[in-house]
Amino acid sequence: MSKTEAGIAGLQTASLGDGIVGRINELAAISESPGHLTRIFLTEQHRAAAELILRWMRDAGMRAHLDAIGNVCGRYEGERPGLPCLMLGSHYDTVRDAGKWDGPLGLVTAIACVGDLNGRGKRLPFAIEVTGFADEEGIRFASTLLGSRAVAGTFDESVLGTKDRAGTSMRDALTTFGLDPEHIGAAARARRELHAYLELHIEQGPVLEQENLPVGVVTAISGATRLAVSMTGMAGHAGTVPMALRRDALAGAAECIVAIEEFCRTDRGGLVGTVGYINAMPGATNVIPGQVSFTIDMRAASDAHRKMAVADVVRRIEKIAKRRELALQIDVTHENRTVPCAPWLKAQVAEAIAAEGFRAFELPSGAGHDGMAMIDIADVAMVFVRCRGGISHHPDEYVESADADVGARVLLRVIENFRPRDKVG
Amino acid sequence: MSKTEAGIAGLQTASLGDGIVGRINELAAISESPGHLTRIFLTEQHRAAAELILRWMRDAGMRAHLDAIGNVCGRYEGERPGLPCLMLGSHYDTVRDAGKWDGPLGLVTAIACVGDLNGRGKRLPFAIEVTGFADEEGIRFASTLLGSRAVAGTFDESVLGTKDRAGTSMRDALTTFGLDPEHIGAAARARRELHAYLELHIEQGPVLEQENLPVGVVTAISGATRLAVSMTGMAGHAGTVPMALRRDALAGAAECIVAIEEFCRTDRGGLVGTVGYINAMPGATNVIPGQVSFTIDMRAASDAHRKMAVADVVRRIEKIAKRRELALQIDVTHENRTVPCAPWLKAQVAEAIAAEGFRAFELPSGAGHDGMAMIDIADVAMVFVRCRGGISHHPDEYVESADADVGARVLLRVIENFRPRDKVG
Repeated sequence: MSKTEAGIAGLQTASLGDGIVGRINELAAISESPGHLTRIFLTEQHRAAAELILRWMRDAGMRAHLDAIGNVCGRYEGERPGLPCLMLGSHYDTVRDAGKWDGPLGLVTAIACVGDLNGRGKRLPFAIEVTGFADEEGIRFASTLLGSRAVAGTFDESVLGTKDRAGTSMRDALTTFGLDPEHIGAAARARRELHAYLELHIEQGPVLEQENLPVGVVTAISGATRLAVSMTGMAGHAGTVPMALRRDALAGAAECIVAIEEFCRTDRGGLVGTVGYINAMPGATNVIPGQVSFTIDMRAASDAHRKMAVADVVRRIEKIAKRRELALQIDVTHENRTVPCAPWLKAQVAEAIAAEGFRAFELPSGAGHDGMAMIDIADVAMVFVRCRGGISHHPDEYVESADADVGARVLLRVIENFRPRDKVG
Repeated sequence: MSKTEAGIAGLQTASLGDGIVGRINELAAISESPGHLTRIFLTEQHRAAAELILRWMRDAGMRAHLDAIGNVCGRYEGERPGLPCLMLGSHYDTVRDAGKWDGPLGLVTAIACVGDLNGRGKRLPFAIEVTGFADEEGIRFASTLLGSRAVAGTFDESVLGTKDRAGTSMRDALTTFGLDPEHIGAAARARRELHAYLELHIEQGPVLEQENLPVGVVTAISGATRLAVSMTGMAGHAGTVPMALRRDALAGAAECIVAIEEFCRTDRGGLVGTVGYINAMPGATNVIPGQVSFTIDMRAASDAHRKMAVADVVRRIEKIAKRRELALQIDVTHENRTVPCAPWLKAQVAEAIAAEGFRAFELPSGAGHDGMAMIDIADVAMVFVRCRGGISHHPDEYVESADADVGARVLLRVIENFRPRDKVG
C-alpha cells in the first residue's frame, strides 16, 4: 500500500474517534445501577442496549435484527445481495461494576466503519456483518460465550437449565425476554456464509502501553489451564512444634507459588502463571496450617507450550510436596485450547497498522474473546487497542479517543482492502 | 538423692497413674456436648467440674473453696497452720472440641500428690496449695489467663464489659454464676504467701516424644510476637499482564513465608515462626492478587532472641516488598514477654526427674500457661509430660497412663524434697 492511499483513508475517517466515544458513553448509561456499569444477559438493560445498537446499525445502512439468543445482527450487503460476509463484532454485556470499553468498543467501531462506507455509498465484493454478542462474560449463568456459541452452532442446550442467583433458569429468562429457547439453533451460521471473523477489542493488559503503541495485532487467544491444588501436612501449635518437626502446608504452598512465578518469569514464550486464590486451614494466627488449597491459572500462546509448562509446574509441585512430606492433590478444573489467529488475515491487519504509520506489533491475547467460539465456523483475527494501565473489568478502564480513532482507521482499512483467504497467497 | 530414696518414693506412688487417668475421664465427661469436650468459663459445666474438683480436694485432706473468679482453691497445711505455700495448679477450662489432658492433668496430678501425702499423714515445713484456674484458654471472652490473673492481682477490670458471642457480658456471666464481679480483687494472693508456683502440664508439642522421654523440665514459657502484614501490589487479569509487568501481592507474600521459614529453620536457639493465616484479594482464579494479608507468630525462649529475630524478619519482608514494588504495612498485634522458669526450682525438678531414672531434658514451652500470670507474684517452674504426636487442642490429645504416672512421681518428689528459694544456694 502506498503513502497516498494511506493518506486518503486517513482523511475519510477523520471524525470516527469522537463519534465512537460518544456512543460508548451512550451505551454505558444503560446500566443496572447508575454510576456502576452492569449490563447483564436477558435483562431490561440488555433489551435497551440492543434497541440502541439496532438503531445505530440501521442508521449505518444495515439490515438489523435480534437473533434467537439475543445477539444484535446487522448486515451491509456487498456489490450484490447474498455474498459471503466479513463478520465484525464484539459483545455488549458487561461484568459487574465494569469498564465501558470492554466489548462495546469493537461493536461501536465496526458500526462506525460500516456507516463510513455507507456514507460514501461504497459497496465491496463481499458483505459486511456486525454482530453484537449478547453474553460473552457469562456473569448471569456462569457460562461464557453464550452469544458467539449460538452463532457458531455450538451452543450447549444443557445450559438452558442453569439458574441465576435469583433461581431463574436460562430457559425462563429467554422466554421472559421474548425469545424461544427451543429455537436457539436458528442463530447458528454456516461456515460458507463467512469469509472470516474479525474483532477489535481493548487489550485489557499493559503491553501496548509499555510499547507506546495505540494498536496491536493479536497472534492468538491464549489457551488456559486451571488447576486446583491441595496440600495436606499436619496442623500444630505455632509455639510447640519445632521447625524441624513441622509439615506446614502453607510453607509448602508458598514454595510452590514462588516456583511457579520463577518458572513463568524466566520463560521466553510469553507464558503467564497466576495463583489467584489461596486458603490455609484452620487459618488461625497461632496454628500451623495443616491444609492449604490454591488455584493455578496458566496461559500461553500455543497449546504445546502451555501443556509442557503445566507438566513442568506439576513436576515442581510434586517434588516440593514429596520433600516436605505433604499429601498432594492436583485437579485440572478448566482447559481451553489456544485459538490461533489466521496468518492470512493477521497479515492484512498488520498491513493496515503499518499504513497508519505504526509498527505492527504482535501480542497474544491472554483474555478470552468471542473468537474462541467463532473459530468453529470461521478463520479469526483480532485488533487490540491500548487501554490505560492495562486496567479492565473495572470502572477505571479507559481508552484515549485518539487510540479509538486509530483503531477505527485500522479496522476500516482492513475492511476496504480485505481479500478473502482464497484470493491470497 | 540416693538410689534407695528414689526406690522408696517410687513404691509410695505406685498407684497414682491409674487414679489420675480415671479422674481425667470423669472430668472429661463434664462437657457442653457429649462426645466433644467443651467446658467453658462460667457455664453449668464449669460449676459441675468445680464441684467435682472441690470434692477431690477435700478427699485429699485440703480445705477447699471457689474463689471470686471461679477458681477452685485447695490448701493442705504444713507442719503448722499459716505457713507460706508451694502452689501447684493448672486450669480446668477447655477449648472447643478439646483434648481432656490439657489443664486437668496438672490439676488432678497435684491433688493426687497431696492425697498421697495426706494418706501417709505427712506434713511438710510449708503448706501446699492447689489452684484449678477457671479460665486459661480465653474461649468465651477472647481474653486468656483470667483465673491466674485474678490470683496474681493483675486482673484487668475493663474486661468485665467484654461480651461473649451470645451478647452476655463477663460481668453478667459472673453474677449469674453467683460470683460478685466487684469482688474479683478478693481472689488476689500476696507474694509473701507463696514460695513458688509449680505446674505440671502436657507438652502440647512433639519434642519429648522425639527424645523418647516421658517428662521434661521447662526452661521458659516463650514470649511471642504476633504481626499482621499487609502487602499491596496491583490486581490484574491473569491472562493479559506479562510476568515482568506484574506486582503480584501473593507472590510477594509467598516469598516472605518461605523466607520466614528458612530464617527460623536455620536458627540454633529454638526460634519458631508461623504464618497461620493468609488472605489474597480479590481471590479469584483468573485475577492476579492485588492485596494480601497474613499473620506471623514468632516465639523464642528469650525476649532478646525473639526481638532480634522479629527485627530481622521484618527487614527481610521490607526488602522483598521494596524489590517487588509492593506497599507494605506491618503491625504488631500482640506481644508477650518470655517467662523464664526460676533456675533454683528448675534444678529441683531436674533432680526429681533424674531420681526417677530419666534424663532431665530441658525444653522451652512454646504454648502459653498460667505461669505467665503467676510470675507477677511468684517464681515459676513447670514439668512437661509427653503427649502422643504432640497433638493438643484436639480430641486426639493423648497421654499414656505410664507417663502420667512418671509425671506424678516427679511432682511428688519435688514436693517432698522442696527447699524454698531462701534455703538454696
